[in-house]
Order: sequence, then structure tokens, then C-alpha cells
Amino acid sequence: MAHTGAKPLWGGRFSASPEGELELFGASLPFDQRLWKEDIRGSKAHAQMLGAQGIISEQDVTDILRGLDEIYAQIEAGEIVFDASEDEDIHMAVERRLTELIGEAGGRLHTGRSRNDQVALDFRMACRSFAEELQHAITELQSVLLRRAEEEFGTVMPGYTHLQLAQPILLSQHLLTYFWQLSRDFERSAAAYTAADACPLGSAALAGTTYPLDRNMTAEALGFSSVMPNSLDAVSDRDFACDLVYACMMCQLHLSRICEELVIWSSTEFGFIEMDDSHATGSSIMPQKKNPDFAELVRGKTGRVVGDLVSLATTIKGIPLAYDKDLQEDKEPVFDAIDTLIGSLHAVRGMIDTMAIRHERLEEASRKGYMAATDLADYLVGQGMPFREAHGVVGRIVADCVSEGIELQDLSLDELRSYSAQFDEGALDALDIAKIVERRVSYGGTGNEAVRVQLTEAKQQLTQQLGRME
Amino acid sequence: MAHTGAKPLWGGRFSASPEGELELFGASLPFDQRLWKEDIRGSKAHAQMLGAQGIISEQDVTDILRGLDEIYAQIEAGEIVFDASEDEDIHMAVERRLTELIGEAGGRLHTGRSRNDQVALDFRMACRSFAEELQHAITELQSVLLRRAEEEFGTVMPGYTHLQLAQPILLSQHLLTYFWQLSRDFERSAAAYTAADACPLGSAALAGTTYPLDRNMTAEALGFSSVMPNSLDAVSDRDFACDLVYACMMCQLHLSRICEELVIWSSTEFGFIEMDDSHATGSSIMPQKKNPDFAELVRGKTGRVVGDLVSLATTIKGIPLAYDKDLQEDKEPVFDAIDTLIGSLHAVRGMIDTMAIRHERLEEASRKGYMAATDLADYLVGQGMPFREAHGVVGRIVADCVSEGIELQDLSLDELRSYSAQFDEGALDALDIAKIVERRVSYGGTGNEAVRVQLTEAKQQLTQQLGRME
Amino acid sequence: MAHTGAKPLWGGRFSASPEGELELFGASLPFDQRLWKEDIRGSKAHAQMLGAQGIISEQDVTDILRGLDEIYAQIEAGEIVFDASEDEDIHMAVERRLTELIGEAGGRLHTGRSRNDQVALDFRMACRSFAEELQHAITELQSVLLRRAEEEFGTVMPGYTHLQLAQPILLSQHLLTYFWQLSRDFERSAAAYTAADACPLGSAALAGTTYPLDRNMTAEALGFSSVMPNSLDAVSDRDFACDLVYACMMCQLHLSRICEELVIWSSTEFGFIEMDDSHATGSSIMPQKKNPDFAELVRGKTGRVVGDLVSLATTIKGIPLAYDKDLQEDKEPVFDAIDTLIGSLHAVRGMIDTMAIRHERLEEASRKGYMAATDLADYLVGQGMPFREAHGVVGRIVADCVSEGIELQDLSLDELRSYSAQFDEGALDALDIAKIVERRVSYGGTGNEAVRVQLTEAKQQLTQQLGRME
Amino acid sequence: MAHTGAKPLWGGRFSASPEGELELFGASLPFDQRLWKEDIRGSKAHAQMLGAQGIISEQDVTDILRGLDEIYAQIEAGEIVFDASEDEDIHMAVERRLTELIGEAGGRLHTGRSRNDQVALDFRMACRSFAEELQHAITELQSVLLRRAEEEFGTVMPGYTHLQLAQPILLSQHLLTYFWQLSRDFERSAAAYTAADACPLGSAALAGTTYPLDRNMTAEALGFSSVMPNSLDAVSDRDFACDLVYACMMCQLHLSRICEELVIWSSTEFGFIEMDDSHATGSSIMPQKKNPDFAELVRGKTGRVVGDLVSLATTIKGIPLAYDKDLQEDKEPVFDAIDTLIGSLHAVRGMIDTMAIRHERLEEASRKGYMAATDLADYLVGQGMPFREAHGVVGRIVADCVSEGIELQDLSLDELRSYSAQFDEGALDALDIAKIVERRVSYGGTGNEAVRVQLTEAKQQLTQQLGRME
Repeated sequence: MAHTGAKPLWGGRFSASPEGELELFGASLPFDQRLWKEDIRGSKAHAQMLGAQGIISEQDVTDILRGLDEIYAQIEAGEIVFDASEDEDIHMAVERRLTELIGEAGGRLHTGRSRNDQVALDFRMACRSFAEELQHAITELQSVLLRRAEEEFGTVMPGYTHLQLAQPILLSQHLLTYFWQLSRDFERSAAAYTAADACPLGSAALAGTTYPLDRNMTAEALGFSSVMPNSLDAVSDRDFACDLVYACMMCQLHLSRICEELVIWSSTEFGFIEMDDSHATGSSIMPQKKNPDFAELVRGKTGRVVGDLVSLATTIKGIPLAYDKDLQEDKEPVFDAIDTLIGSLHAVRGMIDTMAIRHERLEEASRKGYMAATDLADYLVGQGMPFREAHGVVGRIVADCVSEGIELQDLSLDELRSYSAQFDEGALDALDIAKIVERRVSYGGTGNEAVRVQLTEAKQQLTQQLGRME
Repeated sequence: MAHTGAKPLWGGRFSASPEGELELFGASLPFDQRLWKEDIRGSKAHAQMLGAQGIISEQDVTDILRGLDEIYAQIEAGEIVFDASEDEDIHMAVERRLTELIGEAGGRLHTGRSRNDQVALDFRMACRSFAEELQHAITELQSVLLRRAEEEFGTVMPGYTHLQLAQPILLSQHLLTYFWQLSRDFERSAAAYTAADACPLGSAALAGTTYPLDRNMTAEALGFSSVMPNSLDAVSDRDFACDLVYACMMCQLHLSRICEELVIWSSTEFGFIEMDDSHATGSSIMPQKKNPDFAELVRGKTGRVVGDLVSLATTIKGIPLAYDKDLQEDKEPVFDAIDTLIGSLHAVRGMIDTMAIRHERLEEASRKGYMAATDLADYLVGQGMPFREAHGVVGRIVADCVSEGIELQDLSLDELRSYSAQFDEGALDALDIAKIVERRVSYGGTGNEAVRVQLTEAKQQLTQQLGRME
Repeated sequence: MAHTGAKPLWGGRFSASPEGELELFGASLPFDQRLWKEDIRGSKAHAQMLGAQGIISEQDVTDILRGLDEIYAQIEAGEIVFDASEDEDIHMAVERRLTELIGEAGGRLHTGRSRNDQVALDFRMACRSFAEELQHAITELQSVLLRRAEEEFGTVMPGYTHLQLAQPILLSQHLLTYFWQLSRDFERSAAAYTAADACPLGSAALAGTTYPLDRNMTAEALGFSSVMPNSLDAVSDRDFACDLVYACMMCQLHLSRICEELVIWSSTEFGFIEMDDSHATGSSIMPQKKNPDFAELVRGKTGRVVGDLVSLATTIKGIPLAYDKDLQEDKEPVFDAIDTLIGSLHAVRGMIDTMAIRHERLEEASRKGYMAATDLADYLVGQGMPFREAHGVVGRIVADCVSEGIELQDLSLDELRSYSAQFDEGALDALDIAKIVERRVSYGGTGNEAVRVQLTEAKQQLTQQLGRME
Repeated sequence: MAHTGAKPLWGGRFSASPEGELELFGASLPFDQRLWKEDIRGSKAHAQMLGAQGIISEQDVTDILRGLDEIYAQIEAGEIVFDASEDEDIHMAVERRLTELIGEAGGRLHTGRSRNDQVALDFRMACRSFAEELQHAITELQSVLLRRAEEEFGTVMPGYTHLQLAQPILLSQHLLTYFWQLSRDFERSAAAYTAADACPLGSAALAGTTYPLDRNMTAEALGFSSVMPNSLDAVSDRDFACDLVYACMMCQLHLSRICEELVIWSSTEFGFIEMDDSHATGSSIMPQKKNPDFAELVRGKTGRVVGDLVSLATTIKGIPLAYDKDLQEDKEPVFDAIDTLIGSLHAVRGMIDTMAIRHERLEEASRKGYMAATDLADYLVGQGMPFREAHGVVGRIVADCVSEGIELQDLSLDELRSYSAQFDEGALDALDIAKIVERRVSYGGTGNEAVRVQLTEAKQQLTQQLGRME
């Protein structure tokens, strides 16, 4: 393949350039063009600072800003088609056009700057935006969860451990579990924002620069909270990218758990929910199918986000200071993780928002599986029996019921007393499902009053999150 | 976003369709369009078999084949632009066009087939091709390594353990190490081919079909060695995809080790090689720089291939039989792994092919670091001293040389004898670097004769590989 | 912590030794002591070869063999307690004892050998054993699956895609899916054996040795099929360890899928199986609980085996030739993966072996969920309707049934004909569940005859595997 | 193997128990015994609260506390040997002994508590301790780095990008890069502490409890900042474990980069440092070797910590609420990650602390590789030339020097002027290495003054960290 690209901007000491195919292998333009806004914004701030410090002339500043604005408008209008056989990355693509537009002054934009700090800057700005976008998407899903938890207040469903019927709970309690998981994801996203929020610009290639830059000025202009205190660290650090992908991974893991439940609940056997037609798909061969495809897809996509973090970590492992080309591999995992997660959050929000709750099935299921057993044992404890002994007594009662194919509620008091004389009238009360839920009064428990408190706390949490995003 | 797509082909029982954004989230067309050749080839074989078995009419077969050929030509000519808002996957995209072209007969193509076995088929055919492509690319790199190992026969260089000078070796021996690593990668690629080489077609959705299909006929037409014996397994198995990505990961890991060495050898301090200008890049800020960028990039890309395997494995973990939508996430890791590795093999081949060996630096380095110490100890063993004792004696000699800043070759026989009376004339011979290499006569060792044998074996290995690929 | 260990055997040039805590950090004895049998066996073969080649005296050989046998007996009798503060690895631990037992001759055992080839040898021998053990454990589970598939021949159950009822299948067909998955695991285990089955002994530190070793002799004595052709490769290659861990990972992933189903089937809502009391556990608080703990644990342990492979791969990434200390991290992932998988295979075999099939629940479930829809559509196709049109007709019938809460079997022929005039008497036949299964006559399908064929093939597969392990 | 264990405490409804081997497979005692202190501490707080709330008698409280104290003392004295064939986990092991010691009252300890919230509590307490330990170990390494950076103030060394000589920097600047990396690790450790610092106790099995527990009382007694607001979340959340392992992974990745440099710097070719004998090892076969083993081992151990996070993530993926046995796999990755990292931090601290800097080699290396090229270009920019043009001019000068085998400092002014008339006297100044460093005045750069500022900031950072750990 013939080499069709422009001579690279660093070609001074070289007698040959990488040929076409290799050049494309090394190019980052196909993916880093996504950073075009950040690149132009960063260059404008850099030019203004260079002017303010008297490093370049005011005329140069004016020309550069005008040129960059024009390029911005052209890209936005879709008039520029990036081509990796012409430019190896977005920085070169913008700079080359700038020089074409405004001549020699374009060459002065790069004064006191290197691609090493430039790429770190652009990527940090993008990661801040991603982190914000993530916080919004998380909060939106929480908001839908909270609404449904409020709407369904009072609906009883089986609680499971080991996917075995355990104890009856409120559906609101279950939905709020997802809510609290997501509140931790919000925190991790906020931490990822903070990690990206330190300005590397002015660190040049690795050692800082001889020009009297005002790094605080550019940092402020670009909305950074702080300036990175070490130039080698500034160009070699990718912790912020890892922090963001880790935040994505944890959130996607939570969604995988939610989706596993949506899939199970959508099965004919459980039948607790029915996906809305707008959030399900059919089969090309089986006309009766209504598949919870989107829940499965979100669950399946967990793999790629875990893979994204592994990819980043393995890339970073064992590379020396300061900048190595290996680090060019930092962007795609971040883009992939954030796109996957934002899409997944949207899909899950839609499913939760539109799914129909099949109340009759929840009620029916709550009456099964001896879920009153714990309360029956607790009852015996209330009568003075040590818990372990009570557990044993009720275990035997359940075993007998199983073999006779009956539920605990089918037992008479006499039958109960045949297992222990400590049973009396109150025992029957212990078997009432609604009362079992009601009795879980401890803070955080599934009792109606406790859940009401929790709903209030969740609303406060949401308000606090919304406030932090303003 | 308004829903702009055609009504999905499975929409019979549905009152609503996924809206635009969600539809795009669920669509696989953006990546599975890569399977268009396999899809059409598979459909043609299926149609012919349906005709041969009398399940559809000869006229239908004729129409279907003609339609598919026309679609093939259109795609090849770039006349069809796939659009995920119109078709969710490549199978639907082809089938919809077919029905537009030939009418009702297009609808009969899907008889006795489901997307579940269709996608498994297409993907298996693609993985076979990828495995073949991989075998070729591996063999090409081996071929270049072998050529350079032959050219450099006789060049001595330092051998390292722990990146510390250990014993002098032949550069050919070092290059052949890479060769043998790659020969194992060839085997894994061959195994990945075999894993994909069993035909799932005819398994339908999961249970097989009521039509009297001739599964052997389609398998043979599509070049498969065997027919999968269980329909559930046929639609749910993705082992073959994992096997291929695993083969890619191992090969990329080998390349990461090669590239680590190319980077170290390119440093001014080592200076063993110089990358050709065509395989190096410069710096936007430092005019003197000549960076082994491609070696670093290949090393860095190791992360993504490890990530690809993790992605696949995590996706597959814990999903029930038979087909789940999670499995739609199977293709991108495979595509990414194979593209990354093929590009990396090409880049490494180019670097090895064009790099200049700096013989004077290799020679100079080989005389340093007390690399004759083992032979001096072996010499004492030859004089009857137990190895552990000889090791101790020579260790003390080295320690004294280090503190005096001299090399072993600088010692006189008298000085040696001050450490042990067992040293005599022959000891000086033990210190000669060329002879040290020469003396490593054991099979597989770095002695000239042993390496000559190995070069012959490597040539045989290459011939055998080439034969298997024909 | 005071340094309590013996002076290391390599201490000649050193004025200080690592202090206690650091020494323990660097020691591999805590885990590599597991290789003691391989280490002694390898040393015996090496000593005999040294003797045969005249490199050491026959008396030395005799003494060394006697010493090693004594150490073997002592370890087997539990008389030796290894202590990482005394010996850094198993090789040093054995050699030090040998020298204590037989004196100076012990020091001559290491002639022409380095720890680098010694550790590669021991580890390869261990991996061969692990691969064999794995093949046995896999085959045992397959054997139980086959037995149950034969016992349950004729039992109909629902087949699922997307965990939605899809088409009725035979339970045997489902169990055989697991069988075929495992047959691929058997192949990967066999490949892992082959990968380990090449002898590195005689490669010394990295470059081969000056002694006239007979590498074929030791390779044969230790049962290796081939001798590694390159000394650097021999000491730096860990592909065989990766291959084994990869084989483990794939098998554990299969078990995770089986166990996901065992957990779902054990739920009250599905109720398809009941775990035997011997393979389930209870709750410390809920007396009624019978949890499929072991299935969950096997599913959960998938994470660690995926982690083991990532661990190995990340460790190997980017390290230069020949041996680096990083490679000491190769053993624990292998030990962990093999122990986890062997334990998991045992647990799954026990669960499958002892679980009760609840036939009445399977039968009941098979009548639900409109699983006859595909056959009804196929019926229309048989009447001449294009498949896509038939799919649409049946889709509408199902939608109406769902909204009326009835099953397809509840429809009269007249009602069917109100959707399409092409329905006639035969349509009712298309709705019979047993006949639906029966009709899936295609090879690999779930029809009784097809499954009978498959059972025969599975038996042949098992016989072939057993033959290969002899 | 015969079943030798005690009947499990949950055995009421069971007619059989898991047999020996399976029981051991399911037991967590071998690893969770590490939580014995947390378990006893948590039980004491629970008992006191039960007493304060009148749920159990004061006499019971007294007995329970006495019993638990006695068990604590016995374990500490090594008098209790845990045995997984007797107790499945540490909770059962303690409770069984308690009941043996104090009788029936022991059975009442478990009132209003389940193993689900108990294990979450114990594990959270352990993770808090681990996070604190980590913060200390990180700070200790930072402290050593800062001391050496201060000691070496003024030492010039080559700065690298792509492992190519780039620009001269201060060694202090390089060491401080590590310092700032670790300051981010400190933050992640602190975040991991916070994540674990919410009390799950009182959530019981999943739904809360009917007893009037005072959850604030136990939370305060155990030093928790908050109480978890949802009982299902409390027993199913393992985010805190992931957060800790992630913090470990990032820190280990940083250490892998440091260690890669220590290995390269220890090579004969670089020769920038010499490991102290106390922190290096030798070879069993090559008497001259002094290997940076511990640096390699730390680098190699990165794999296992990445693997630990993958293990956790994969385990958590797709499991339904609330507690599943899969979660038993949560502890070993955490223990392994923290042990690996603490050991690695210790090893790296020791290496940095004791390594000798070879100043003469750093000085010599700093004069090579045309590292003045950037300043020469900057000089031309100062003369009014656009940067890109200046870059080109200097690139050509370097290319000519390379082909003539000379350094930039070897050029006369006339020779420089032959490339551009804009060179004058000042150009020679631009080539002075010490002045080049000195000139990098921008904040965060490597100029002496800038580094002095940075040393002060680093000291403040350390002080702040120490203050937070008090």
C-alpha cells in the first residue's frame, strides 16, 4: 500500500515514514476524534495564556482563536471528515488544519506544550464529562426505582436467599435495594470526576517547559480544581481513566444482578412481572416468544466492562516513566465502558419504568415455601426456648409438611403442640404472611413502617445527588 | 427518538416495538454485518438442501440462489448501506432484501432454521477463516525470524536472566526462541480452527426441527468436518470463540515479550538494534527522538486481548441453556482480538525484518558483566571440585572484581590461583567469550553446532506448517 | 524479625542476605513444596544420566539415589516439615537435605543443571499429572450424566431460550448437552497435557551447558514425548501452564451454566428437581430452608478460575527473556485452578447423581407457555403458507390466548380457522406435546429416535475417552 | 472419606448431611478463621445490645461475654485448632464452643441475627482494618521516597519517554512522581475504608427482624459511622470488598511501574542503581549474578491482584438478591490482594531505602542522546521561528550528528549556523545540560526551584495523610 498521508509533523530527522498499513495500525484518530471538542477548547485556553504571558503576540492569539473557532464550526457541521491516512491523531488533525487556515501562527500554538500533556488534558476533560453523564443516568434510574417503590408500597412478595423462598418482604424493599446500590455507584462516579479534575497542561513532554507559563490560568479557564504538581506524573498518570472504568464496572455489575432478576421474574414459572412490549422482543421461529432480551443483553454486556478494566490494567502494568506509546490504548476501554453503561442504564430504566407487576402471582408465591418458619421459631424463642432449639423444632415441622405436601398454615394448633408444648394460640398469628412482614420493625427491615422511613431517606438521597450535580 | 425501523419480523404477538434508541442498543448489525459473506453462503447451502430434500420447490431454490447472489454482488459493490434502525442484524438485513427481491419464496428460506443455528453457523465459519488467517500471519513472522536467525548465525550477544547479564549466547538462539513460541501459537490456532469446524445448522431454535433436513449435506457443502450431535449444544456453545480468543491472547503475550525486548534494545543504553525509520516515529516536541512506538503499541495492545477473553468468559458465566441474548456479546471480542493480533503480527514482522543489528554494541556488551563466571566454576568442577563449592569460589572472585572495577578477563592466572590452587592454564580458556558460547554443546543449547541443528529443525517446522495450511 | 535461615546456596558474592520478612516474601517453598515428588523424580533421572555419561562417578550416582530415596520416604512419612525461613524453595530444601545426608556428592547433583530448567521440569511434570486428573474427573461426570440421560429417556421437559418456554424437549437431550460440553473440556485437558509434555531438562540457566548431557535419556526416563529444542525457550516458556488453566476455566464456565440451571430448577417456582439432603444445606436462621449451596458455590468459584488465568497472563505480559523472577508467580494460579475445578467436578457429579427429578412438575410445565406455537406455524407451512406469514398468524393467536388466559390446546378447530382457513384436522395434532417432541426427527434434535442415536454416540465418546486415558 | 463433623446447626429438616469431602469443599473455615477477632468483637456488641433492649437477660449477657472472652484468649494462645471437618465457618466454630462453655445461653446469642448479616459485619470490620493498614504502608513508602528525593536534590538524570532519552531531569523529580502516584492510592484506600464503614448488623437473613434491636447501639460500639438503611442490601452488598481490591490493584500497578524501572536501572547497561545485598539475590548456577529479584517479584505479583479483582467481579456478576452462596468466594481475593500489596509495599520501601545511586552513571547518561534538542529548538523559537519549523531544523541537525557519531555539544557555532542563520552565541548555552534542567521553571517542572516547591508540597501531603490516620 502506498503511503498517502502527509509527512508527519515530527519528521525532521527521519528518512522514511511508516507505510500506509502500519501508519493506520499506529493511528489513534479513528477513536480519539471523539475528543475534538476538548482538544479545541484546551488549545484556546493555552493560546490565551500564551498571549497573556507575552509568549506569543496578541495577533497570534486572535488568529489562533479565530482559526480554532472555524474548525470547531466545520467539525460540528460535519464538513470535516477525519482520515487516519492523513493525520495520526485528533491533535495533529486540528493543528494541521489550523496552520492551513492561519499560516505560521498555527505553528506557534504548540509552544510550551507537547502532545503528552495535550492528550492527558483532552482525556481528563472527556472523563470529567463522562463522569457527569454517568451521575445523571444513575440518578434517573434511581428516580424511577423510587417512584415504583412508592407506587408499590404495601405489595408483598417472597424474599429469597439462594433463590429459595426465605421470608416475605415488601416489593418496595426489594426495589430500594437497587436504589442503594446505585447510590454507591453515584459516589464512585463522583470520585472518578474528582480523579480527572486536576490539570496536566503545562507539563510539556515530561519535564515542564522553559516558557513562563501560567498553569493556574489555563487550569481555571478549563474549570479544573487543581494543577498537577509533577510534570512526569502529569503525562504518565492514567489513574483517572481506571477510576472511571472501575465505577462503570461496579454499576454494570449491579445492573447484571437486577437483570438476572428481571429475567427470572419474567419466566412463566415465576411470572412476577411482564415486560412491556416496547421493551421485549420476539423469536424468528417461535411465534409465542416474548423475550426479556434487553435484560439479558445488559447482563451479557457486563463482560465487556470487566474486560475494559482488565484491558486498561494490563496495559499499564510494568511500563516505565514517563510516557509510553502503550498508553494510547487508554481511550477505547473508557469509551466502550461509558457507552455500554449509559446504554444499559437507559435500557434498565425503561424496563423498570414500563414493566407490569403481576400482583396476583406475587401474592400467591408469598404463601408458599414455609416462609413463616423463621417467625414460628422466633415465637418459640419468645416463649423462652433457645434459638437453636427452636430452629430444630421448626425444621422438623417443615420436614413433615414437605413430605405431606402441605403448608405451615395448614397445621392446627394441636398439631403444632405435638412438636412442642410451648406453642399456644399466638403461634397461629406467627404464620400470617402480612403480619410477618409487618413485624420486621428493625431499622432497615421490611416492616411497613421501616420501609416508609427508608423511602423518606431515599428521597433525601436523591435530592442530595441532584443538588450535587447542579 | 422516533421509531423509524421496519416492523421486526417476529412482531406477530406484539402491540409495540422497542423505540429507536433501545432498538439500536439491542441491534447487532453494526458489528455482525461483517458476517455477510458467511450468512449468504450458509443460506445458499441451506436452500439447496431444502430443495434436494423436497422441502421447498426447485423454483424456490432457483429464486433464492439468484436473489442471494444478487445481494452478494450488491454488498460487494458497496451498494448496500446497512442501517441498524432498519434491521437488527445481518440475518434480517439479508432476508428482508431477499424477500423484496424474490417475493414469497424468500420467506421459505427460513424453513427448518432459526436465527439461533444461523448465527452459530455464520460465526463458526468466520472463526475458521480467522484461524486460518492467523496461521498464515504467524507463519510469516516465523519465516522472517528464521531468515534473520540464519543471517546472524555467529553473532554473539549477552544472554540475560532477570535482565542481568548471564551468559553469552548466539543472537540466532535468541531469535529462535521467538520462533518456537510462535510454533505453539500456530498449534493453538489450528486447535481453534478444529473447535469451530463442526456444523450447527439444522438445530433450529434449540430442539431440532420437524423437517427432514439432511444435515450432512449442508455440513459438507460448507466444508465442515463434522455435524454437531446435539441441537441445544449447537445453539448455545461458544467454546470455539473462546478457543480462538485464547489463541490470540497467548500469541499477543508472546509479542508483548518480544516487543519489551525491542524497546529495551532500542534504548541508547543497550543500543543493540536500531529501528528502521519506516518502523519508528518521532516526537512533536523533541526533535531528536526516534521512538519504537510500534513495539510499545503492540505491547500495550496485549491488554485488550486479555480483556477480550475476560469479556467472553464473564459473559458466558452462569447463563442457562439454550440460547440467551447475552451471547450476542460473543462477536466483538473475537473481531477485536483477531484484528489486534493480525495487525500486531504484521507490525512485529516489519520491525524484525527491517531493524538494524548493531554488531559492535552486541560484541562490546558480551565482554561485560562477568558472564564467564559459570564457565570458570564449571572449570573448577572439571578439576574435581563439587559445584556448590566452585560456585562459592567464583562468587568471591567476582565480588572482588566488582569492587576493583575490573572484568574476569583482567585477572592473571596467579591471581586466580590465590583463590584456589585448582586453577591452572586451562582456566584462561574458560574465560574466552567465543569459546564459552561454542562449548554449550548440549542439544538445544547456544553452541554453534547445536544452533545449526536447531535452524534445520526450525526449517522443518516451517515446512510442516506451510504444508498444513495448503 | 531476625534472619534465621541458612545462608543461601548462591551467597558467594554477597555480603548480606535478605532479612527474614523479605526472605519469606520471596520464598516459594510455601506453595512449591507441592512439587516434592516431581523434584526428587527429576533429580534421580538427572543423576542417572550424569552417571551414564561419565560426568559424575557411579559411586556418586549410588549415593545420590540412596539419599533422594531416603528424603522421599521421610517426606511421605511426614517427618520433614518444610520451613520457608530455612529454604527458599523445594529444590533448595531437597538439595540441602541431600548434602547433609550424603556429603560432597550432593553438591555434584546440580552439575549441568540450573534451578531454571529444574523448576520448569518439575512444573511440567505436575501439569501433566493435573491434566490427567482432570481428564478422569471430567469423564466421571460425563459418565453420571450419561447414566441419568439413559434412565430418564422419555421424560419430557420444557426447553428454554431466554429462560422463556420455547419448545418441549427430552430431559435426556438437555443432560446430553452438558455431556458434549464436557467432551470438549476433555479435549482441552488432553491438549494441556501435550503442551506440558516436552522436556526442558538440560537447558541449564538459559544457554545449555558445557557438559555432554544426554537430554533424550532424561526425557525418556521421565516419560516425555519430546525434548525442547531451544534452551532459552525451555526456561522461559509457561504456555503449558496457561493452557491448563485455560482448560480449567472453560470447564468451570460450563459447570457455572449447569449450576445456574440446578439453582433455578431447585426453586419452588420451577421445582423441577430436589437436591438430595446430602448435597444441600440449611439456614442458621430459617428452619425451612434447603439451599442448593454447592451449585451456587461452584458457580461462584468460576470467578477465581477466570481470575487465575488473568493472573497468569498479566504476569507474563511484557517480561523479557529468559527467566525472570516474575515467573515464580506461575504456580499458585495453576494449583488454585486445578483444585477448584476438581472439587467442583466432584460436587456437580454428586448433585447430578443424587438429585431427584420431579416428573410431575416437568410434565405440568411442558403443557404451558404456548410451546406448540412453532409446530402450529410449521403446520401452516406444510399447508403451503410461507414461514414468515405463518409465524405472524400464530403470533396473533398466542397474543389472543394470553389476553384470555388460555393455552393453545384450549382452542377448537373453528377458533383456529377464524385466524386462517388453512387450518384443518391435523392442526390439533400439531398441538400435542409428546408428538411435538417426537416430530423433531432431524439429526441432533430432541425426537426420541434422534436422542437414542445420540445416546449411542455419547457412549462411544465415553469409551474412546476411557481408552485414551489408559 | 467418612463424615466426621458435628451435625450442622441447621440440620433440623435434613435426613442426611454432606459427606466429608463435599463438606470440606463447602467449608469457609480454612480462610474465614482469619476473621475470628472481628467475629467475637461483633458478637459481644450484639449480646450487649440484646441485653440493653431486654431481649435476653443480663445473666445471659454476662455469660456470653465471659464465654467469648475465654474463647478469644484460647485462640490467641493458640489453644484452639480450627478444623473444617468439625465447623463449616468461623461463626459456627465460635458459637459451638460458646455453647459448650456456657450452655443454653450460647444458643440465645444468635437471636435477631443471621449468618448473613454476621458475615457481612465481620468482613466489613476486617476490610476497614485492611484499609487502615494499607494507608500506613503507603505512607511509609512515600516517606522513604520523599527522604531520598530530598537527599538527591540536585542529581541530574536522563528523563525518558518511550524508554528513549528525552530531556534531562532531576532524580528528585522522578522519585516524586512515584510519591504522587501513591498519594492517589492513599485516597483510594481511604475511600475503601469509607465504603466498608456502614453497619449491616441487625439485617438478619435478609428482611430485618422482629426483635426490637437498637442498630445504632451496635454500630456505635463497633465504631461504624453509619447504619445500612436496607436489610437486603446489607446482606448482599460486596461493593466494599471490590473497592478495597481495586485500591490494591491500582497501587500494585504503580509498584509494577516502579519495579520495571528498578529492574532496568539495575541492568549493567543502564547501571543507574545498585541494589543493596540485603535486597537482591544470586543464582544457583551463575556465581556473578546479582538479581533484582524482589523488584521482579513485585512486578509479577501484579497479575494476582488484577486476577483478584476479576475473580470478585465475575463471582458477583448476575447473581440474584439477597444472599447467595457464591458470595462465600468474596474473602480470599481480598485477603490475597491485601497480603500481596502489603508485602510488596514493604519490599519496595526496602529497595528504595537501601539502593545505592550511581551518580557517575547518571551524569554520563545525561550527556547522551541529544537531550538538548528541545532546548535548541526552543532557542530558535525565542529567535522568532515558529516551533514546527524549529523542530524541523533541529531534527536535521540531530540526524547529521547521529550519522557522524557525535553529540550536539560537539558542534561549533558555525556548524549550527550552517543549518540556520538564527543561531548565535546563546545557542551554546541552550546545550548545557545543567542549565537545561534549571530552565524548566514552570510549576511542576523539573527546574531546581520548581522541584523545591514540590518537595514542600509533598511534605505537606505527608503531614496531612499522617494527620488523617491518627
